[in-house]
Amino acid sequence: MTSATPAPPTTRKAIVLLSGGLDSSTVLAIARAEGYACYALSFDYGQRHNGELAAARRVAKALGAAQHQVVRFDLRAFGGSALTADVAVPKGRTADEMATGIPITYVPARNTIFLSFALAWAETLGAADIFIGVNAIDYSGYPDCRPEYIAAFEAMANLATRAGVEGTTHVRIHAPLLKMSKADIVRRGTALGVDFGMTTSCYDPSAGGVPCGSCDACHLRAGGFAQAGMNDPLL
Amino acid sequence: MTSATPAPPTTRKAIVLLSGGLDSSTVLAIARAEGYACYALSFDYGQRHNGELAAARRVAKALGAAQHQVVRFDLRAFGGSALTADVAVPKGRTADEMATGIPITYVPARNTIFLSFALAWAETLGAADIFIGVNAIDYSGYPDCRPEYIAAFEAMANLATRAGVEGTTHVRIHAPLLKMSKADIVRRGTALGVDFGMTTSCYDPSAGGVPCGSCDACHLRAGGFAQAGMNDPLL
Repeated sequence: MTSATPAPPTTRKAIVLLSGGLDSSTVLAIARAEGYACYALSFDYGQRHNGELAAARRVAKALGAAQHQVVRFDLRAFGGSALTADVAVPKGRTADEMATGIPITYVPARNTIFLSFALAWAETLGAADIFIGVNAIDYSGYPDCRPEYIAAFEAMANLATRAGVEGTTHVRIHAPLLKMSKADIVRRGTALGVDFGMTTSCYDPSAGGVPCGSCDACHLRAGGFAQAGMNDPLL
Repeated sequence: MTSATPAPPTTRKAIVLLSGGLDSSTVLAIARAEGYACYALSFDYGQRHNGELAAARRVAKALGAAQHQVVRFDLRAFGGSALTADVAVPKGRTADEMATGIPITYVPARNTIFLSFALAWAETLGAADIFIGVNAIDYSGYPDCRPEYIAAFEAMANLATRAGVEGTTHVRIHAPLLKMSKADIVRRGTALGVDFGMTTSCYDPSAGGVPCGSCDACHLRAGGFAQAGMNDPLL
């Protein structure tokens, strides 16, 4: 976006999970457009591609987040993913290969952990709305990107919290990208003024902050811009 | 217990949430007695009473845990609880007062965060069983200590994970203390050889590692030992 316009006056607060990628940045813009005061939440969890956090900071600021918190914890001790362990990020996979099975870049229970922290912050802020950029089309292989998972988390969240017990608030997990294609997301983010040049998607830390062009995330991103008939400002 | 007897041979692994208190130590002994190889999981989340972690280490060792991990993160930035913020721990409350409303020692979404990390570790270990020492009788004021909450977490967990998608494993959240009184827990732990002298329950860090005797946790613990007709080795 060229410049941040002030958020409309509101008392509704939302937690927005923000990785600094294309999807979550678009979600932040959507939540803002819906009139929420946005509390952006990022995680430093030992991911190898931690250029994400710098991107998240840029995006949170540009899109006028009311606050941006980074929670730090270390998932490396648990192992199990190419995103946190010293395992090669897969390269050059076709769309068919990406659509089959659960990729090794899947981080066990990651969205559950992220949403749990979001729930804690929501409860202390008195917010009832949590936004997450999961996508069931491009990430069909990730169990925690499916609609039934999001619904189950929401049901659990409403039993987990003070507001749930007291019946004063119904927590809602918003997943506005759930059924959008990558091209739809690129179009929507662009329409809402997201500067995708501030975002980062590449999984490969050895690429030194520029898109490697051959990991799954780079492929999906490139496909999205191509299908939307737009240029990726990162390239 | 006087000495750790070796765990029975087994390939079943369980994650056991271990705070170092009376309840979770008893749960570890129960999981062990049921034949699980126990992977104890503790959290350093900015709690003021972090003598808990030393207790957790002692107990994990004494009860023969296969491994003990401490995950560190900081909940203080979110605020909202006397257990993490610089707010006085309530003292001298009666049983009736403790049974009414949600105490300020409640930490927002804490059990959800703890169980989420347990789920991540379970998935990487190939474990399907997670044990937690929640108790719906003594902690009726905590939303995330109720049976319906535990059931909802279990339902969500089975949609969140690779094993859930592939249908190979059904994750179970075990809450063996759910309907036990504190006296029952003291009796059960004693029967299973738990040395309660290794545990800690007090919420008040200013008491310097000895029970303050007047916070809710000290009251509940004292009541449990008294009703069980036993002496607390800490006193």
